[in-house]
Amino acid sequence: MTRIACHQLAPVIGDLAGNRARALAAIDAAAEAGADVVVLPELVTSGYVFDGADEARPLAEPADGPTLRGWAELAAAHDLVIAGGFPELGDDGTLYNSAALVDASGVRALYRKVHLWDREPECFVAGREQPPVIETPHGRIGLMVCYDLQFPEWVRAAALAGAELLCVPTNWPAEPTPAGEHPMDVLRAMVAAATNRIAIAACDRCGPERGVEWVSGSLIAGPDGWLLAGPPEPVPTLLLADVDLAGARDKALGPRNDALADRRPDLYAEVAGRT
Amino acid sequence: MTRIACHQLAPVIGDLAGNRARALAAIDAAAEAGADVVVLPELVTSGYVFDGADEARPLAEPADGPTLRGWAELAAAHDLVIAGGFPELGDDGTLYNSAALVDASGVRALYRKVHLWDREPECFVAGREQPPVIETPHGRIGLMVCYDLQFPEWVRAAALAGAELLCVPTNWPAEPTPAGEHPMDVLRAMVAAATNRIAIAACDRCGPERGVEWVSGSLIAGPDGWLLAGPPEPVPTLLLADVDLAGARDKALGPRNDALADRRPDLYAEVAGRT
Repeated sequence: MTRIACHQLAPVIGDLAGNRARALAAIDAAAEAGADVVVLPELVTSGYVFDGADEARPLAEPADGPTLRGWAELAAAHDLVIAGGFPELGDDGTLYNSAALVDASGVRALYRKVHLWDREPECFVAGREQPPVIETPHGRIGLMVCYDLQFPEWVRAAALAGAELLCVPTNWPAEPTPAGEHPMDVLRAMVAAATNRIAIAACDRCGPERGVEWVSGSLIAGPDGWLLAGPPEPVPTLLLADVDLAGARDKALGPRNDALADRRPDLYAEVAGRT
Repeated sequence: MTRIACHQLAPVIGDLAGNRARALAAIDAAAEAGADVVVLPELVTSGYVFDGADEARPLAEPADGPTLRGWAELAAAHDLVIAGGFPELGDDGTLYNSAALVDASGVRALYRKVHLWDREPECFVAGREQPPVIETPHGRIGLMVCYDLQFPEWVRAAALAGAELLCVPTNWPAEPTPAGEHPMDVLRAMVAAATNRIAIAACDRCGPERGVEWVSGSLIAGPDGWLLAGPPEPVPTLLLADVDLAGARDKALGPRNDALADRRPDLYAEVAGRT
């Protein structure tokens, strides 16, 4: 069994030192609770609602910067896998809305968000690489960020690459939700899990920022799509769930069906490239 | 506004004449309620749980057979679009799990289910054509059958072809559902609608058959994914919803995002063909 944690947090925009400390404390809390994998929100070190690139730039750092060094230290100390988002400063000065996957051996994958939301293009350049899927000591783990999850093609890419667990740092802006329903972002994650027979751990933020409210929809869904933890109240919260990730390698939907083998890629090929 | 109807029904296996009459009565009831589009279940004339091809064959008929002739008469009489499923006897004697889209001018599209469930391959050959999307007097309407909806690639194909409403005749076998949750088949339809900003009308069956129970999850979801009607109790039920299908042509997700234009088909192309 893999103990998966999502630590919903309330980053404070611009408070790099404070946000770093809150993220490290969240990782410690998850480790204390026996977690093997810890997921943190998107842009956890910086906050989200930037006035523009000039505000985002001083909050960005390279993959060998202090944030990921700090995560790598805790990953080594507690034998953890950590996934979380931060504004990345690329070698050539380009900014990306990135997420990292870190384990006891260091930074295993860096992913640059491909599908950018709202005003993000004013600050960030969109990535061009497939979502990483990494064999870790705690399972085969994929990584993408927030709005990426809204594109079933992208989740499928991670599933076809063998992801057993998809970690999704997010900042989901709140939307109207009918009474008695889960927020649509939560439903999307549940259905993406069931459709691909993978576990999904999406870690959202809380704490209104410059007039933006958040879904605070952090969740852990099993390979059958049903919620194992979350969504919590809109406050900092540690979610935990134990998942047998071996179950995510079995794509059977019954005695004669298989979520991936039943695809008809020959028939999809002409559609995928259609714009 | 387009008034969409799903008429959940309980076909009786092998009772071709009785099932045809029940389908015609359902269409009449929908027309009486002012429907513009009527969706009926998968294999509505035959039932589903066949002992094998020998039982299915005498229940099959060609597209110019009495079932679709009857639907075409009612479509012309009431200016309706009708979508429903039946076992099709192809020109060369091959059987298909098919659905038809019929309007006042006759049979507009015939679709052969591409993704076959469970024992269906013992009776039916899988289709090889894209889901049809047809301009009708009551909107631009796409068509697929049951398990097809479980493949986001397939719904995307219909959306990219311009479907405003996707009609989905289904026979969803019941599965365990946690208390307080919609069945996963219902969630899939809701998320597929929201992901593609299209309306979805899925018409399920009821009435246990040879030990199989059904979700009876008929539903009409708007382009925002939220339920406008259904799912009903597991009995024959007429669901109705008025939908402005022009809303499904607007893919905006906010001032700067678009559900289809934000796709990155260049990055998906290599994945789609992966098996």
